[in-house]
Formats: sequence, structure tokens, C-alpha cells
Amino acid sequence: MDVIASSANKKIKLVASLKQKKHRDAERLFIAEGIRLAEAAVEANWPCRFGLCTGTAAKNERVQMFLQQLEARQCPVYEVPEDIYNKISDTQQPQGVLLVLENGSSSLSSVISGAGASFILVLDQLQDPGNVGTIIRTADAVGCSGIIVMENSADIYAGKTVRATMGSLFHLPVVTGIGQEELIDFLAQHKISLLATALDAQAQPYFSLDFTVPVALVLGNEGAGVSPELLDKADQKVFIPMAGRSESLNVATAAAVLLYEGLRQRYK
Amino acid sequence: MDVIASSANKKIKLVASLKQKKHRDAERLFIAEGIRLAEAAVEANWPCRFGLCTGTAAKNERVQMFLQQLEARQCPVYEVPEDIYNKISDTQQPQGVLLVLENGSSSLSSVISGAGASFILVLDQLQDPGNVGTIIRTADAVGCSGIIVMENSADIYAGKTVRATMGSLFHLPVVTGIGQEELIDFLAQHKISLLATALDAQAQPYFSLDFTVPVALVLGNEGAGVSPELLDKADQKVFIPMAGRSESLNVATAAAVLLYEGLRQRYK
Repeated sequence: MDVIASSANKKIKLVASLKQKKHRDAERLFIAEGIRLAEAAVEANWPCRFGLCTGTAAKNERVQMFLQQLEARQCPVYEVPEDIYNKISDTQQPQGVLLVLENGSSSLSSVISGAGASFILVLDQLQDPGNVGTIIRTADAVGCSGIIVMENSADIYAGKTVRATMGSLFHLPVVTGIGQEELIDFLAQHKISLLATALDAQAQPYFSLDFTVPVALVLGNEGAGVSPELLDKADQKVFIPMAGRSESLNVATAAAVLLYEGLRQRYK
Repeated sequence: MDVIASSANKKIKLVASLKQKKHRDAERLFIAEGIRLAEAAVEANWPCRFGLCTGTAAKNERVQMFLQQLEARQCPVYEVPEDIYNKISDTQQPQGVLLVLENGSSSLSSVISGAGASFILVLDQLQDPGNVGTIIRTADAVGCSGIIVMENSADIYAGKTVRATMGSLFHLPVVTGIGQEELIDFLAQHKISLLATALDAQAQPYFSLDFTVPVALVLGNEGAGVSPELLDKADQKVFIPMAGRSESLNVATAAAVLLYEGLRQRYK
């Protein structure tokens, strides 16, 4: 490994800058930090720019195997001193390993499943990075064919979000920055039913809907819910019944309930 | 309102000390911070020792109504200067209102539903305060009859946990510090079926179980799962199928899926 000894090094400055969305957007790069996430990116053949590793981390057996994989893929790795690494790390307990990755470039059509079994999750202006990451992880667990992230949603490439996906970000197509008209046209063209969570009188309990047809399930903003424009175009409106005295559910909880109803109905 | 002007005041010192579990245990007191949580405690008639409020917060209309409710319940409230309040606050954006509450004293039998429809959640050595709070909120949403928290679990009275329940802690009986034998005997005596999450060959998908009988659903520790002793005594072992490439689910996600299957089967 080449060694980077100065915090003025361009690569160090780049990594530090990628904590900010504007730099992630400008460079079209983001960071996967920690051995587990970094492994998941490599296993998924995710396009990788370079890696950083501390001397201590490089002594770890699991990290050594990982570094060999990187070498086989011709992804350069640089050794950095502990103190510099810790300064640019985005985690509270730095593991001493990170990868700089290229933003995904999935096209909208990548979220479709070939067998007519599309099960698409649409995130409409969700704002909490941890929620978005947890929901991507759950969507992966139920076998969603892809995820569409609408304009004005939390950045899926934020460190906290990437970590909360536990690697699921690398497992299924995730398309970002989609506008309302583009989404509606796309779903109509592919005959995909739009299900949106709503609280109005037309909404049905989630378990009375048919998830076995091609569906796109929209989850809305934590406070405001699904945008009126998308609700208006929804083929079916759905709600999650509550039996107790809770006033609401966490949006990641709501996502788990709805996505697993899809798995339950599709389970063979 | 009486005014507390010094941070050396006993009540201020008490509130500051309640951030630590040892003091919460010794005093059998905990804190509900923020207007929404404080309101939920009062609405539930939760035993209240006293309240603290800043001058700024007391100008808010919602807070004023709340202070009137406290007065009607003869719960004393003290005004504290902003700087003192902010020092003892456990939140990043202090709202200037908190209540000192007495620990719950529900007996084990309080978690049973009279109509033979008991739906009990058992938390077995969960450690993450946020997860525990979110799970209590979901258990409330599905109408659980009560929650049993086993020995060696995260303290339900930690500030982060109380806040994550969003007030649900005050909505249903929560019993803490229960031992394995005590639990097993209790469930046997009341003919309540013990369902435990497991990964072994005997486990069935969660949706093939019968949640319409009296059940106690056990969720295990984030890393180690349900204790072997409880697994051994389980009437049925259950797993959550995964269709994608995720390796695991967040425990609060798993809780949502299992608890909502209970609601779905019981929904009329």
C-alpha cells in the first residue's frame, strides 16, 4: 500500500469533503465506511474509486482478505495514519477502513422485475437519514425489485443512511431524483399499480390490498405524508390500522408492515 | 410557580442525577421531557412528583394549558432559568418542560387481557434504548395487552427510550425485571402460548402461526437472539422469511412485522 502522510493530501481532502451533500453531488462520489459495508460494496461489484486503511486495521485478518479482493479488482488502497483517519471518519468508533464509491447510475427501468412481479418501493420526500437507510434494508429483505427515491428526499448517499442500509444499498437498484410526472408516466407505461398510504375515507387496511400484481408502494414524508399529486394518481389508498392508543407509527415501522405484507402475499 | 434560582437546589440535582440508571433505580423515579411526552403522562394519570418549566416555555399556550392540568392534579411545578434547565436537559433541543415521574409498578398479571385475548410482548435482554422505545410504541399501536421486560434488558426509563415510545410507555402495562422461571410459570398458569423468534429447523414463517389465541411473543437480544432457556420452553418457534440479500433485520423492524401479524389476524 502507498502511504498518505499528510492531511493536505488531495485524497484526504476529498474524503473529508464527501461528508457534505454538495460535494457528494458535485463529485458523484460517496463513502462506505467500516469493513462490513466495504465488503458488501465489493461483493456487489460496485464501482470503486479508491480505499483508505489504517495500519492497525490492516493487521486484522478480515481486513487483509478484503484488501486482497480490492487488489484483484485493481482498486487502489492507501494507508493513512490513525490520527488523520480519525479526523475524516464519519463514525463514532472508526474501524479504519473506508471506500470511496461512485454514485449509482441505475435507470428507472432497472427497478422492474422481468417476471412481471415488480415490487417497487417509492420514497416520497422522506427526510430522516436513518429512516431511509433502515427502509432500504427492509426493502431488500422482502425482495423488492427496486427503489425509487423522489426529488427532495434525504440523500441516500449520506454516511448515516449508507450505514443504516447495512449494505442493502448495494443489493438492489435504487434510482434517485425522480419527478412526479416522470414516475406517473413510467408506472402507467408498465402497468404497475400505485399504492399510497393515506388517511382519508377511501383508504383500505393494508392487508385487503392485492400485492401479488406488479405494485409500486409509496411512503410519504414523516410529517406531511404522501404528496397530494401522487395521492391523487394512486390506484389504491392504504392505511395501517391502529388498535391501541398510539397516535402514529414511525415511518420505518410503517414501511416494515407494508413491505412484509407484500412478502407474505407473495410467499411460496 | 415557585422559582428555583440555583443549580445547587435539591430538585435540580435530583433531575440531573436521573440521567443515570443507578439513580433512577435508587429513587424509583424517571423523567418525561418535552411537552408531548409530559402531556401523555398526565393524560394517563401517571404518578407525578413535580415538574420544571422555563419562563420562555411557560409563555407557550399549549404549555399553559398543560400547567393548568398539573395544578388541577396538585403536581407542583417550579420555574427554572433557561441556563440551568439546558444544563440538566437530556435532549439536544430542550423544550423547557419536564416531569419527574414515579417508576411504574404494574404487577405481572396486569399484562393479561380480561377477555382471554391476551397479546403480550416479551423483551428478552434487548440492549438498544431507541429500539426498545420504538418497539413499545409499535406494541401500543397493535393493541398489545401488556409488555414484559426480562432481567438484563435496557432500562425502559432511560431518557432516550422514554422519548422513543412517544408516550406509549404510559398507555399499556409494562412490567420489568422478570426472571425466566417466573415468566414460564406465569404463562403456563394462564395458558398463554409462548412464541419465540428462532432460526432453527423447527421454526415456521410468522404468518403460519395462530395469533388469535392468547399469546406471548418473545423478541431476543440484538446480537444473541432469544435466550436458550426461553427458546427451549417455547410452544412455537417463528422466523421472518427474507427474500432478498439482506442478512438480517433491525430488531424494531422484526417487532413491527410480528406484532402487525397479530393485529392482522385479530382485526375485525
